[in-house]
Amino acid sequence: MSYVIRWEEGVLIVLDQRALPQEERWVRCRTAKEVLELIRTLGIRGAPLIGIATGYAFALEAYNFSGEDVNALRTHLVKLIEAFEHHSRPTAYNLFRTLDRLKSIISKRFEDVEELRTKVVQLAEQIYREEIEACRKIGDYGAELLPEKCTVLTHCNAGELATGMYGTALAVIYRAVEQGKEIRVIATETRPLLQGARLTCYELRKHGIPVTLIVDSAIAHIMERHKVDCVIVGADRITKDGFVANKIGTRTIAIAARFHKVPFYVAAPISTVDPYRTAAEFEIEYRSPEEVVLFGGKRTAPTDISVLNPAFDVTPPDLISGIITDHGVYEPPFRELIELAKQLARSQ
Amino acid sequence: MSYVIRWEEGVLIVLDQRALPQEERWVRCRTAKEVLELIRTLGIRGAPLIGIATGYAFALEAYNFSGEDVNALRTHLVKLIEAFEHHSRPTAYNLFRTLDRLKSIISKRFEDVEELRTKVVQLAEQIYREEIEACRKIGDYGAELLPEKCTVLTHCNAGELATGMYGTALAVIYRAVEQGKEIRVIATETRPLLQGARLTCYELRKHGIPVTLIVDSAIAHIMERHKVDCVIVGADRITKDGFVANKIGTRTIAIAARFHKVPFYVAAPISTVDPYRTAAEFEIEYRSPEEVVLFGGKRTAPTDISVLNPAFDVTPPDLISGIITDHGVYEPPFRELIELAKQLARSQ
Repeated sequence: MSYVIRWEEGVLIVLDQRALPQEERWVRCRTAKEVLELIRTLGIRGAPLIGIATGYAFALEAYNFSGEDVNALRTHLVKLIEAFEHHSRPTAYNLFRTLDRLKSIISKRFEDVEELRTKVVQLAEQIYREEIEACRKIGDYGAELLPEKCTVLTHCNAGELATGMYGTALAVIYRAVEQGKEIRVIATETRPLLQGARLTCYELRKHGIPVTLIVDSAIAHIMERHKVDCVIVGADRITKDGFVANKIGTRTIAIAARFHKVPFYVAAPISTVDPYRTAAEFEIEYRSPEEVVLFGGKRTAPTDISVLNPAFDVTPPDLISGIITDHGVYEPPFRELIELAKQLARSQ
Repeated sequence: MSYVIRWEEGVLIVLDQRALPQEERWVRCRTAKEVLELIRTLGIRGAPLIGIATGYAFALEAYNFSGEDVNALRTHLVKLIEAFEHHSRPTAYNLFRTLDRLKSIISKRFEDVEELRTKVVQLAEQIYREEIEACRKIGDYGAELLPEKCTVLTHCNAGELATGMYGTALAVIYRAVEQGKEIRVIATETRPLLQGARLTCYELRKHGIPVTLIVDSAIAHIMERHKVDCVIVGADRITKDGFVANKIGTRTIAIAARFHKVPFYVAAPISTVDPYRTAAEFEIEYRSPEEVVLFGGKRTAPTDISVLNPAFDVTPPDLISGIITDHGVYEPPFRELIELAKQLARSQ
């Protein structure tokens, strides 16, 4: 496995996912604003990776802070937290969980700038380690569910590019392949930004795993006329009523999977579980119409029409066969999982 | 309403749908091979329009035939029928129905070239008139189903661009609007060739009907969180067991509509009904991977991956609320409709 984000003494080096698969372009960020802009424009994406990058965004500011007034640093970080809350992406829960942990740290008393700086940098590195470890465990728990030979359909990108290493949905596949299982993957292209075509196909091909690309709307046909053994997708947020917010199209796939009697799994670290809000209680991000009507600079639809560009949808628990987490596999309605997430959030 | 195909004394003038919406480019065809190439590359598309264009392709050859040997013309046309059977698009039934009617004509005895020429040109004009009249009637029958104010979701393009005039699914909307009903349309972009974004949005905007564009995979989200009163789509073939072959993604939409309790209608002329084959008995067209992985010349996925690019899927009768035809609205399992289609095919 390879990294997609790296901390190097006050510089965050990031693989810019907007340029893939044509180009492996690395960006060096020195400020939180640069990281925020990469998150907003999907240079950095995937709920766990957004959580990691947010931690490092604050580490950059703390590390590079030149004054000696710890309260000035604290005030600076509080303002930045507000900027991330209001100008980032509203659906990915890991971002807000990182912010909560930051708030909890900076609300404490510190002797000097150095002490606060160290805590903020340590938190970033801890979140990174935790997420990678969570992905490794998701791979272990999930791989047990897959038969020796099978075809898995996945949507968007829930691989190392979305998590820093291993992935969530793809961690299951990588681990099963390591165990000698024969896995084929069907990847949806995932309009409008094509994370499936650009990123999942790129990742799987790099790891030598056979992948077949389809357009998003072909799912029902593929489930009917071709062999799909199960669906595994990631999650941007799992709500306290057991709904899964994930890339637009996930709900459509879950409904089609139920119709065709194909098991539908979600793979996500427990850091993605929001134990405080229901599916109705958080904002679903709607993005710019330009993402739909422009393609490589070329217009694909007339001007003067209306566009709805939801970036996520919500899948109800009864359409989900199981959620594969770093704490095991949970069955609907996921009450035990949500209770555990609440306990973990309180203890940190 | 405006025309998209026109016969002018041995020349067929066609609106090239590949250039829309950027450019209204008209192509002048003088041979059947030119028409066949436009059908293969989707310059001409939509089952009814393909049926019309096929008729005119043979009219071109008959009209422009320079010899005086009626058997030579007959042999020439028979060879061309074979070319259309094997090198056109296998799913659209109207093409095969036009070929059947041509075969029936040229199997008769003719005094001279002029007599056969006249019959072939007359058949083309008759098919054109019939299809437009069928669309008009579909509009009348379908508009009765729509409430005074409603939102209709449609897929691909089943408008005047697919039929020569009025359309099938869109004929219903055009007629309802003429009757003073307040109709909003949600159009799926329809990957990979974006007929929804390029053609349906273009058509509806030209006629002043409000349209909102979404990516294909957003259907379940839109049905859950926004208001969709019904789905109306076209058909490329209706089989003798009551299945509807239509643009890839239609089956997915029908399944999502059932889940969200949204009525799902198909609008198609009876010429689209294949009373001889079941859903399992005809070929579903798979098209080039390039349509999926290239966009405006730009590669959207890595090379060396596999792609499945089915152009159509099949929707079972129990997911369909009704088929709106030029002979009325039929309910599943559509036995009466299929029986009528068989009688009509025999009588021509």
